Amino acid sequence: MARASSTGAGLLLGLIRDGEAVTRSDLVRLTGLARSTVAQRLEALLQHGLVYEAGGSASTGGRPPTLLAFNEGAGVVLVADLGATHSRLVASDLAGAPLAEVALDLDIARGPELVLGAVHERFTELLRDIDRRPGDVRGIGVGVPGPVAFHKGEPVNPPIMPGWDAFPIPAWFAERYDAPVLVDNDVNIMAVGEHWTQWRDAAEMLCVKVGTGIGCGIVVDGHIHRGAQGAAGDIGHIRVAGHDDVICRCGNVGCLEAVAGGRALAARLSEAGLPASNSRDVVGLVRGGEPLAIQAVREAGRYLGEVLATSVNFFNPAVIVIGGDLAEAHQQLLTGVREVIFQRSLPLATGDLRIVPSRLGDRAGAIGAAVMVTEHVLAPDAVDRALQTEVAA
Amino acid sequence: MARASSTGAGLLLGLIRDGEAVTRSDLVRLTGLARSTVAQRLEALLQHGLVYEAGGSASTGGRPPTLLAFNEGAGVVLVADLGATHSRLVASDLAGAPLAEVALDLDIARGPELVLGAVHERFTELLRDIDRRPGDVRGIGVGVPGPVAFHKGEPVNPPIMPGWDAFPIPAWFAERYDAPVLVDNDVNIMAVGEHWTQWRDAAEMLCVKVGTGIGCGIVVDGHIHRGAQGAAGDIGHIRVAGHDDVICRCGNVGCLEAVAGGRALAARLSEAGLPASNSRDVVGLVRGGEPLAIQAVREAGRYLGEVLATSVNFFNPAVIVIGGDLAEAHQQLLTGVREVIFQRSLPLATGDLRIVPSRLGDRAGAIGAAVMVTEHVLAPDAVDRALQTEVAA
Repeated sequence: MARASSTGAGLLLGLIRDGEAVTRSDLVRLTGLARSTVAQRLEALLQHGLVYEAGGSASTGGRPPTLLAFNEGAGVVLVADLGATHSRLVASDLAGAPLAEVALDLDIARGPELVLGAVHERFTELLRDIDRRPGDVRGIGVGVPGPVAFHKGEPVNPPIMPGWDAFPIPAWFAERYDAPVLVDNDVNIMAVGEHWTQWRDAAEMLCVKVGTGIGCGIVVDGHIHRGAQGAAGDIGHIRVAGHDDVICRCGNVGCLEAVAGGRALAARLSEAGLPASNSRDVVGLVRGGEPLAIQAVREAGRYLGEVLATSVNFFNPAVIVIGGDLAEAHQQLLTGVREVIFQRSLPLATGDLRIVPSRLGDRAGAIGAAVMVTEHVLAPDAVDRALQTEVAA
Repeated sequence: MARASSTGAGLLLGLIRDGEAVTRSDLVRLTGLARSTVAQRLEALLQHGLVYEAGGSASTGGRPPTLLAFNEGAGVVLVADLGATHSRLVASDLAGAPLAEVALDLDIARGPELVLGAVHERFTELLRDIDRRPGDVRGIGVGVPGPVAFHKGEPVNPPIMPGWDAFPIPAWFAERYDAPVLVDNDVNIMAVGEHWTQWRDAAEMLCVKVGTGIGCGIVVDGHIHRGAQGAAGDIGHIRVAGHDDVICRCGNVGCLEAVAGGRALAARLSEAGLPASNSRDVVGLVRGGEPLAIQAVREAGRYLGEVLATSVNFFNPAVIVIGGDLAEAHQQLLTGVREVIFQRSLPLATGDLRIVPSRLGDRAGAIGAAVMVTEHVLAPDAVDRALQTEVAA
């Protein structure tokens, strides 16, 4: 259906960012707006520093037209990809390119006040490192290891985040920065990072994170699919046949996560005499050539493959990216996944299907969060609103 | 990302169809276009008959503005929902409302030339019944019981449609009508019909058709999700645990369709001494109160529920509509489905989930096809192109 979408400055900025328009004439031609209207709106973008004039181009005669370019340096965004025990913080420009970053050990179970306090401290340091001020911050992004009500920016009953349920993360940052705050789960921001930087042409993609738990980010038509309650992609609690004796922390039996997640594998290997307490230990054992560990990860790949085969028949993605701590042992895991998907899914759906390891590794989430925030604050409607506010002030 | 979408006549038509604009001033205000530009493009819509002027409104003084309205009667669309043995043909107006329809027995296995020939004959009769000419046809829609390469409008290896593989349905109609032809599978058009008429507010919906086979239409953000190869929603070949002894026509074992589809149930009941050769016979036995048949359908519902529980965790829909021949026995089937979904899926994803029977019944597909075609031919870009063609001619 028709939408009366932006015809304001935001639309012009979008055309300039995409490289579709490099001159005033391009803007007039592409939008159908009057030249005077284009000039007026462009002036607002120039004053705001979002666009700059790059001088004349080589011309076939007459006065060369002034070229227009997007100014990625017009502000910065700050993002934090918070894991259960490790976090990565990044300050990026408005094109989503990292300018400074830091990884730190941070136990999410210490609760929101302590954790966000530490994040804010590091944000301040990052800004200082790149010689920018809090007033330059145009947006903030936070990823957390649990379900999130995206529109409110609040965690929803996150099992491994005591004290965070319904905590208003955007309000906490609003007292410190004058910028919009987006909160999403760690798997969705990872999916955005992988999609945006590696698979932009794939309209439909799944990005699976296999660590302590197991989750999946779903990309439809280039955008994250969150579902009716923001619960989409929660594949860790899909039942795997033949494991009704395995009780999951969710209260059900035979969940994928309880059978093939990092914690489950570590427990099983420990019982078998190979001490391991998390995904990283399991990966260490695989790298050390322990046959039992190799077998366990391969088997985990097969169970993951069973669930993904179902998702392939249901959703028909073009690409499945496998990432997360356990995926560091990716040869074994990927082989198990591929084995079952190609056996179980329909030829039409698997003919061109690519099943690949994550390329960004543990930076995927932070990069994805930065992209999500820049796309949000530079969306045509958001730019229209921001510039009108300035005019009114 | 910003798109330089239609700012032409198509955009104006969209605003008028949606009821967002009823006067010229509305159009100027909503689009930001110059009054003279709006006047010029509106003139093209008026000449084309897509919009009419509905006279002045009661005004607070001065000359009352002329009201603008969409003319649903500016053309008709013809659609055919082709089943394995039964088909439904409809002529509708440009709002998708049926003007005349006919149901007929038509064996799809007779091949494309014979089947489409019969369809064309009935299309001609339908047009005569509503006193319209072939030149009034603005679009044609065809639904078929098998996978379709949507962008080409060709069936892809459809198992129950001998002779139809890669048959160019649009080209066949192009020799008879000067109008675009859309072809999709029967489950997708059914999903469009249910969504458009009953669940427009539900951004995410699944529509499951349970007949001889089992398939699922997926609605994301109000649009059909077809997947990378158009194979999305093929849930009939997802494996159900514990049935590795059941061989499916696809060559795999334990597929949902081979365990819970209409043909499978009919075969099982026949073996048990209750003769049945298809879904309708099974429904007849259920209505007749046969305990074995009731038990079989309830059990089929549970298997369907297992697969849908997975889809609920993965996709998080707001609504699941259950339709198709076997769903006519819907109490038993729905109960089985609900039983397993609410047991197996996460509370966050099922808290507000609605699992409901189809409301349109066997008309859902034809109504959906008509909506799909009208939305296609009245999309802003399509209208822009059509009107420019006229200007150029």
